[in-house]
Amino acid sequence: MRWTRTLIPTLKEIPAEAEAKSHVLMLRAGLIRKLASGAYSYLPLGTRVLNKITAIVREEMDRAGAVEILMPALWPIEVMTQGRLKAFGEDVIRFTDRHGREGLLAPTHEEVVTGIVRDNLKSYRQLPLNLYQIQPKVRDEPRPRFGVIRSREFLMKDAYSFDVDEAGLHQSYEIMYETYCRIFERCGLDYVVVDADPGAMGGSGSQEFVVRSEPGTAECVACEGCSYAANVEIAGVAAPVTRPRSGNPELRVVDTPGATTIEQVSKLLGVKPEQMIKTLIYLADGTPVAALVRGDHEINEGKLMRALGAQSVEMADQETINSVTGAPVGFAGPVGLDGVEIIADHSVMGIADGVTGANRADAHMMGVAPGRDFAASRVEDIRTAVDGDPCPRCRRALRLFGGIEVGHIFQLGTKYSAELGATFLDADGKQRPCVMGCYGIGVNRIAAARIDSTCDESGIVWSPTIAPYEVVVMPLDMSEPELVSAAEEAYEALLDGGFDVIIDDRDERPGVKFKDADLIGFPLRVVVGKGYLRTGKLELQVRRDGSKSEVETASLAASVGEALAELSKSVQPAAST
Amino acid sequence: MRWTRTLIPTLKEIPAEAEAKSHVLMLRAGLIRKLASGAYSYLPLGTRVLNKITAIVREEMDRAGAVEILMPALWPIEVMTQGRLKAFGEDVIRFTDRHGREGLLAPTHEEVVTGIVRDNLKSYRQLPLNLYQIQPKVRDEPRPRFGVIRSREFLMKDAYSFDVDEAGLHQSYEIMYETYCRIFERCGLDYVVVDADPGAMGGSGSQEFVVRSEPGTAECVACEGCSYAANVEIAGVAAPVTRPRSGNPELRVVDTPGATTIEQVSKLLGVKPEQMIKTLIYLADGTPVAALVRGDHEINEGKLMRALGAQSVEMADQETINSVTGAPVGFAGPVGLDGVEIIADHSVMGIADGVTGANRADAHMMGVAPGRDFAASRVEDIRTAVDGDPCPRCRRALRLFGGIEVGHIFQLGTKYSAELGATFLDADGKQRPCVMGCYGIGVNRIAAARIDSTCDESGIVWSPTIAPYEVVVMPLDMSEPELVSAAEEAYEALLDGGFDVIIDDRDERPGVKFKDADLIGFPLRVVVGKGYLRTGKLELQVRRDGSKSEVETASLAASVGEALAELSKSVQPAAST
Repeated sequence: MRWTRTLIPTLKEIPAEAEAKSHVLMLRAGLIRKLASGAYSYLPLGTRVLNKITAIVREEMDRAGAVEILMPALWPIEVMTQGRLKAFGEDVIRFTDRHGREGLLAPTHEEVVTGIVRDNLKSYRQLPLNLYQIQPKVRDEPRPRFGVIRSREFLMKDAYSFDVDEAGLHQSYEIMYETYCRIFERCGLDYVVVDADPGAMGGSGSQEFVVRSEPGTAECVACEGCSYAANVEIAGVAAPVTRPRSGNPELRVVDTPGATTIEQVSKLLGVKPEQMIKTLIYLADGTPVAALVRGDHEINEGKLMRALGAQSVEMADQETINSVTGAPVGFAGPVGLDGVEIIADHSVMGIADGVTGANRADAHMMGVAPGRDFAASRVEDIRTAVDGDPCPRCRRALRLFGGIEVGHIFQLGTKYSAELGATFLDADGKQRPCVMGCYGIGVNRIAAARIDSTCDESGIVWSPTIAPYEVVVMPLDMSEPELVSAAEEAYEALLDGGFDVIIDDRDERPGVKFKDADLIGFPLRVVVGKGYLRTGKLELQVRRDGSKSEVETASLAASVGEALAELSKSVQPAAST
Repeated sequence: MRWTRTLIPTLKEIPAEAEAKSHVLMLRAGLIRKLASGAYSYLPLGTRVLNKITAIVREEMDRAGAVEILMPALWPIEVMTQGRLKAFGEDVIRFTDRHGREGLLAPTHEEVVTGIVRDNLKSYRQLPLNLYQIQPKVRDEPRPRFGVIRSREFLMKDAYSFDVDEAGLHQSYEIMYETYCRIFERCGLDYVVVDADPGAMGGSGSQEFVVRSEPGTAECVACEGCSYAANVEIAGVAAPVTRPRSGNPELRVVDTPGATTIEQVSKLLGVKPEQMIKTLIYLADGTPVAALVRGDHEINEGKLMRALGAQSVEMADQETINSVTGAPVGFAGPVGLDGVEIIADHSVMGIADGVTGANRADAHMMGVAPGRDFAASRVEDIRTAVDGDPCPRCRRALRLFGGIEVGHIFQLGTKYSAELGATFLDADGKQRPCVMGCYGIGVNRIAAARIDSTCDESGIVWSPTIAPYEVVVMPLDMSEPELVSAAEEAYEALLDGGFDVIIDDRDERPGVKFKDADLIGFPLRVVVGKGYLRTGKLELQVRRDGSKSEVETASLAASVGEALAELSKSVQPAAST
């Protein structure tokens, strides 16, 4: 490609709207332009990156035995199950068509793919089957941000596996796990696999593939000591080692007029937040329950739900709180709280001299000793992990990190197949529901994650596998015919060698060309400048480490091939210089 | 691919819902399944066909120097110009997002691509530029039909060219014309290029690429004598040769109580429809005008609008008709019609003894002689062409045919660039609007058009270039180990040869395998049956003409390569046997 025949509008300024590094660089390098909040046009270079990632994803899915299909993006609203409509809520865009029928833009395709299998697959002999598609998806994000990382439209690879039993699902899941590893490695990503919350997909378990980055879309923990890693939505915290309680504090009620928050009360009474027992009234499947966590901790509703074995939990309304505690919101406490189950986080039971609400307006209790002053019917892990918490597997410290979720795999089980009747005839002639898994990759996020995790102060550092072009040929003086013809010769040699090459044929100063090449991050560049006139040699430069070597035109293709192979081997980020 | 590892649900029955041959066959061959009206899932074989067509389109667009981008499918409503919102009307799906902002699903992308060029292109040196994308599009068809031919979602290649002047546009248009020819030829389509109505796109001229087929989405004419071809929406009709009028009929008023239609009046009075002068009252840019066509002809509103030089024409309401003619609807006629412009089709002036409305309830006039009894201020070509009409270029007969529109190219001029400010700095330092063209291809329709135009009574006849697989290997008895291993050997040899091959490893009777292979239409099949046990040779069969030859496994790949090359040469339909 010739630079002057495509559209690469690089920017000198840092766009004010951009937060994430990848967002800034994708705008500056001319990969994308914003149309509206969360909606981006991919310009020629950005589109090339997307296409290369898509090709890798397709190749690896095919290699894994998955079969490509393409399902409608628009559904009649009744196709989506009620449960999922509720779970996705306002994330799903709905519309009314010209005939007054309600429709939606599908965020994922469980219902349709399960329907296809229900209608077209009969026998266990046709299983396992893994159907995937690569399709633009839409989610009405409450607050689109970070450029293409959290945008309203994105390109998603979604796959759905169907097996005869749980053992089959585990095998299909394992194959996808390995396929995802290969895909992300080929795209040059350094990723972590973390345990995750299945969320709206449901099912029995899921894992996310996360690339460390700030700011990220996912907050995760990883253990310093073992391989445990999880999204904080689900990360476990080991129970603290129980110590005999020291002291026997005096339980007393104190006035705390208008102080309803942890911050207000701890300031007023001069106690630390970790001494406080935060008491939250929830409705678990409609029944009130009091959940206790330490004042410096946050409750984790997913963990609470699982600990209670409930289908849903939600914060109780003001009226319920009033009737359960006898006090307005902000003064609930476990002492003397009758007629409601009390569930406490492990850490609460370690508080020696606690402070909590007195179940009376404008009053708190001090000197609270858990066990002595109140009993919890369950003591569980119900809070969100924080940096330094003990690992649930090995008790070493968990470390918090931010990252971009690029893939998510789920063991769905029979949730959809049972509800939608996707059964097969087993070897004994019995109808059984297929056992399903589903597997998503955010294609656009792979690009952003690579940029965010490996860029340097000059710009993007691509893996050659997903770079918009592998090599740029740079004639540094377009008014010097000898340089131009040497550059054209190099360009032709690389085209003939099958490389993905662009020639910077703009009539621009060398400084502009170098800055743009750095910014866009072509893995290799072939510089044809004054040195060529002296030595007759081209300069081959590597973007990642800045290394340079001189090559003859005759051996250029071979040298480029070797350098690309070397770069593709490793997913290491750029040397920090 | 192994047949048992993918999903190919062929059907014996002809689905009741399907009208077009391609629709029936795509369902029966397991290429697609319906989700809802106008919404289809592409199963594995259908997806392979789409992907192959997409690859050909992309390759040829790149070869033509066009550059791929990807624009958002969802727009804030204000991005689309008011004129286009009106022109597309209910075809465009609108929605309201979670923040209450109105949005739409873009049917084409003129506004956004013009905005990209406006914001990112500065100089004439960057022109010409042709930006294209391949993207799912949505149109809320009033009546989706013919399967994927007129569906609500479809895959579209849309391209937009930007030039410095009209001459540049003509060159870009010509390049796209030739590129389209190559694309359709490579996909094995026998197409006609016809003049077309630019419709909602606007601009100065457009052409459609149409594949002859019944039923079709486009009604066209082609001249028997010259190369003239056009969509009937725009097809011209030569003016008849004027002959001296014979006779001098007596003008008289007759009672026609309740007879308001051509059929009713011609029956009541015993006259032929071609003797009748149909008088239609239109509002042209708001001003009433009387348009006359022969009773057996249909008025063409596009031609009427152009003949009048109007921006819009619409049928007048009842009230206007009443006030213009003094009669209720159904009794208008040109005799004595004052205060309104009369425009007549050429053919009306050739009527010798005409019948028309008397501008009075329940009465018509007979013995009308145009010229003698009324004058038309304009005599123009304002009717829709019919089979046998004289060609506007050579006066030989025009022949009507139905077809599927697979491509449409438009000369837009500066319609969008001027309105949206997409200007460039010319060589003299002046700001000028880019001169634009736009170019669309319906990817899904290419598949349907190929099927509709070349299928036979047994099923689909693919061009090898877009067939789901080029070759099927058919072991006819899975319980015969020698046959199975010979088939596996053939399969491996073809995979090694780089062919796109599937092995029918189902434990099915030969009849089932042959029927399915015919139905799906793999261009070649390698049959491994009883003959192999006798001769040690495989049978290579050609789907298109049913020809057969015996080959050794060692030379199979070479034979398959030759046969495919031969099949790709020609776009001839299947021999009619």
